Amino acid sequence: MSDAPLAGLRIVECATYVAGPSGGMALAQLGADVIRVDPVGGATDYRRWPLAPGGASLYWHGLNKGKRSVAVDLRAPAGQELVTALITAPGAEGGVFLDNNVRRAWLSWPVLSQQRADLVHVHVEGHRDGRPAVDYTVNAGVGIPDMTGPEAAGAPVNHVLPAWDLLTGSTAAVGLLALLRRRDRSGEGGLVQLALADVALAAVASLGWFTEARLAGRNRPRHGNHVYGSFGVDFPTADGRRVMVVALTRAQWRALCQVTGTDEVFQALQVALGVDLDDEPGRYLHRETIAAILRTWFEVRELGTVNALLEGAHVLWGPYRTALDVVRDHEAAPAASPLTDHFQPGIGPVLGMGTPLRLGDAAAVPAPAPELGADTSAVLADVLGLTSTEIGRLHDRGVVASPGTG
Amino acid sequence: MSDAPLAGLRIVECATYVAGPSGGMALAQLGADVIRVDPVGGATDYRRWPLAPGGASLYWHGLNKGKRSVAVDLRAPAGQELVTALITAPGAEGGVFLDNNVRRAWLSWPVLSQQRADLVHVHVEGHRDGRPAVDYTVNAGVGIPDMTGPEAAGAPVNHVLPAWDLLTGSTAAVGLLALLRRRDRSGEGGLVQLALADVALAAVASLGWFTEARLAGRNRPRHGNHVYGSFGVDFPTADGRRVMVVALTRAQWRALCQVTGTDEVFQALQVALGVDLDDEPGRYLHRETIAAILRTWFEVRELGTVNALLEGAHVLWGPYRTALDVVRDHEAAPAASPLTDHFQPGIGPVLGMGTPLRLGDAAAVPAPAPELGADTSAVLADVLGLTSTEIGRLHDRGVVASPGTG
Repeated sequence: MSDAPLAGLRIVECATYVAGPSGGMALAQLGADVIRVDPVGGATDYRRWPLAPGGASLYWHGLNKGKRSVAVDLRAPAGQELVTALITAPGAEGGVFLDNNVRRAWLSWPVLSQQRADLVHVHVEGHRDGRPAVDYTVNAGVGIPDMTGPEAAGAPVNHVLPAWDLLTGSTAAVGLLALLRRRDRSGEGGLVQLALADVALAAVASLGWFTEARLAGRNRPRHGNHVYGSFGVDFPTADGRRVMVVALTRAQWRALCQVTGTDEVFQALQVALGVDLDDEPGRYLHRETIAAILRTWFEVRELGTVNALLEGAHVLWGPYRTALDVVRDHEAAPAASPLTDHFQPGIGPVLGMGTPLRLGDAAAVPAPAPELGADTSAVLADVLGLTSTEIGRLHDRGVVASPGTG
Repeated sequence: MSDAPLAGLRIVECATYVAGPSGGMALAQLGADVIRVDPVGGATDYRRWPLAPGGASLYWHGLNKGKRSVAVDLRAPAGQELVTALITAPGAEGGVFLDNNVRRAWLSWPVLSQQRADLVHVHVEGHRDGRPAVDYTVNAGVGIPDMTGPEAAGAPVNHVLPAWDLLTGSTAAVGLLALLRRRDRSGEGGLVQLALADVALAAVASLGWFTEARLAGRNRPRHGNHVYGSFGVDFPTADGRRVMVVALTRAQWRALCQVTGTDEVFQALQVALGVDLDDEPGRYLHRETIAAILRTWFEVRELGTVNALLEGAHVLWGPYRTALDVVRDHEAAPAASPLTDHFQPGIGPVLGMGTPLRLGDAAAVPAPAPELGADTSAVLADVLGLTSTEIGRLHDRGVVASPGTG
């Protein structure tokens, strides 16, 4: 991947769970040499579920694809010296550090920047005051579970996707590249701090939802599966599948009416109700009526027929798929699938992707995740210039570990 | 913002809704000059709900903070020439284009790169084969709604947060900065394409959930508000509030047992069940039992008491807040709030944030969104060097618009 956009760049990552590791992976998949540093035996996320039958974590291996792995005794002063040296090693393509909830003083900006003044350091945390937070607690705090789920749900509904972790990881990568661009121009390094809770607050505020509640003096009610402010909802099909159908623009709405043969019904309804269904607010306010009229069209057709007709009519829609449906669709037509079935040492075949950022027409085949500590010796040699004797001694003293030695 | 990391960089954005605009905003909030180009009168997202009482979109203004706005007749050849000139204007800090679902040939890479070979172009789309998709249809297709909601939910539960749009926008910003870094080094520009559907598939695959379903031969059942693979769930408090409590690590679990006085209960339970609750799988498999035992502690205490006790004990937790709770918490202690109450022309006070990437200790006060077309004349003058006579003529012919002229 020598002409990859970030080829040559070296980043040291000390991070766990989703946020930091997913940000580091995004950069690794664009060609950066991301060196993940872990304690010997792995960090707290190393056995996180889901697991493969042999006990390896599908989650850990999924979130650390394309990185190198170094295993170090982080409590030993010699281990701390090595990690500090890796982070602050000289060279225009090094001196970049991404951490996630690390509270160790020796890994903090004031200490590290004494070793390398132009360090670029991205520190991801829970709350900006240092209190811990995770996706589940942050999501609870921004009003989302209160808006999610069926209208009759009497209690908050959590999301299952760690959306804030993923967005925070990506935002950390943006911050890292932005600071790096400044360093390339001015020589100036810097620390950027990023709180998971702030990412969530900033995003929900950007959608206008807090100001909406303040102006209305009340919270937006739950809408079930309806899209807020426009028309979009799910319909069951004759064969027990389900589709999501959306009409944001006038063209999408007209296409939907035409293919379902409901043009005249809705024309008459517009007159009867005195409403313009060509405008989003009209469709939103009458979403239940619209859905009831359209439902009968979907419930007598199977998914294959619905697919052919809606695609032909340029309706904006998509089928609901379970995880197993995604797997089966991939296996039925692997060449058409954005996923690849790649081999992960320690696990076997796994479904994954390289970067979704396509630089050519071909799908990127992801590099697998490293075995824990697999690159310990190579990194100590090529970044710090240690000899094999010195590296052997570090192993003997238990300061570092490689597979089979830890 | 002259020492902002991206100061000097000029990006032209042709994008609507959430994905492209949120990515452009992230770059603007780091100091880039992001010039949003819209058709005269605004694009299809210009009146998207929620609205302020005067009819302005809280959503549009929230997602376009800190940009400049140029309004152009995109159907007129003269308008197309102007936009092409803006995108491909010379200079190391220009020649960067972010688009979102734009299918116009004159705004495509093959055409634009003839004007400027080292153009950096990020093209966001629905599916990689060009078919349209939006957050709601993409989310349906990756299995998430099938895992979301109460265990008894008989149908998929959509998320309300446009998580895939936000993640796609941020990923687009990562791609843009990565290509820019390559251009800074080699002079080589390029096109990067990014499909919303691929972002979602890649992320869910990275969490291991597709391979999990394939290995198990079945889909993961719904877990309500429980955290998968560990212990985390919500509890109601005596005063009608609700909290999310999580114990991923042993230390978090021990802290929770201690503060709730359940140490001995869980010790006895471990013996009785023959399970190790210090490990995540044990806590996950017995999550209902654990939740039932802990629930009584929460339901007799008010939120204030729960807060004080859990914080003191270093338990990982957070209160559920509605959007209105967020507003009230901000108004009760604005200095402690990451949000700011800034003035948005055309709307009034709105709650928002600048970039969550903190370069110093102070919260960034967000720049407001531009009025549509507010920067038309300034951009034509400072990027293209047009005279005020030329700019006046373009207004007279209706090729461009400024507030009050469109």
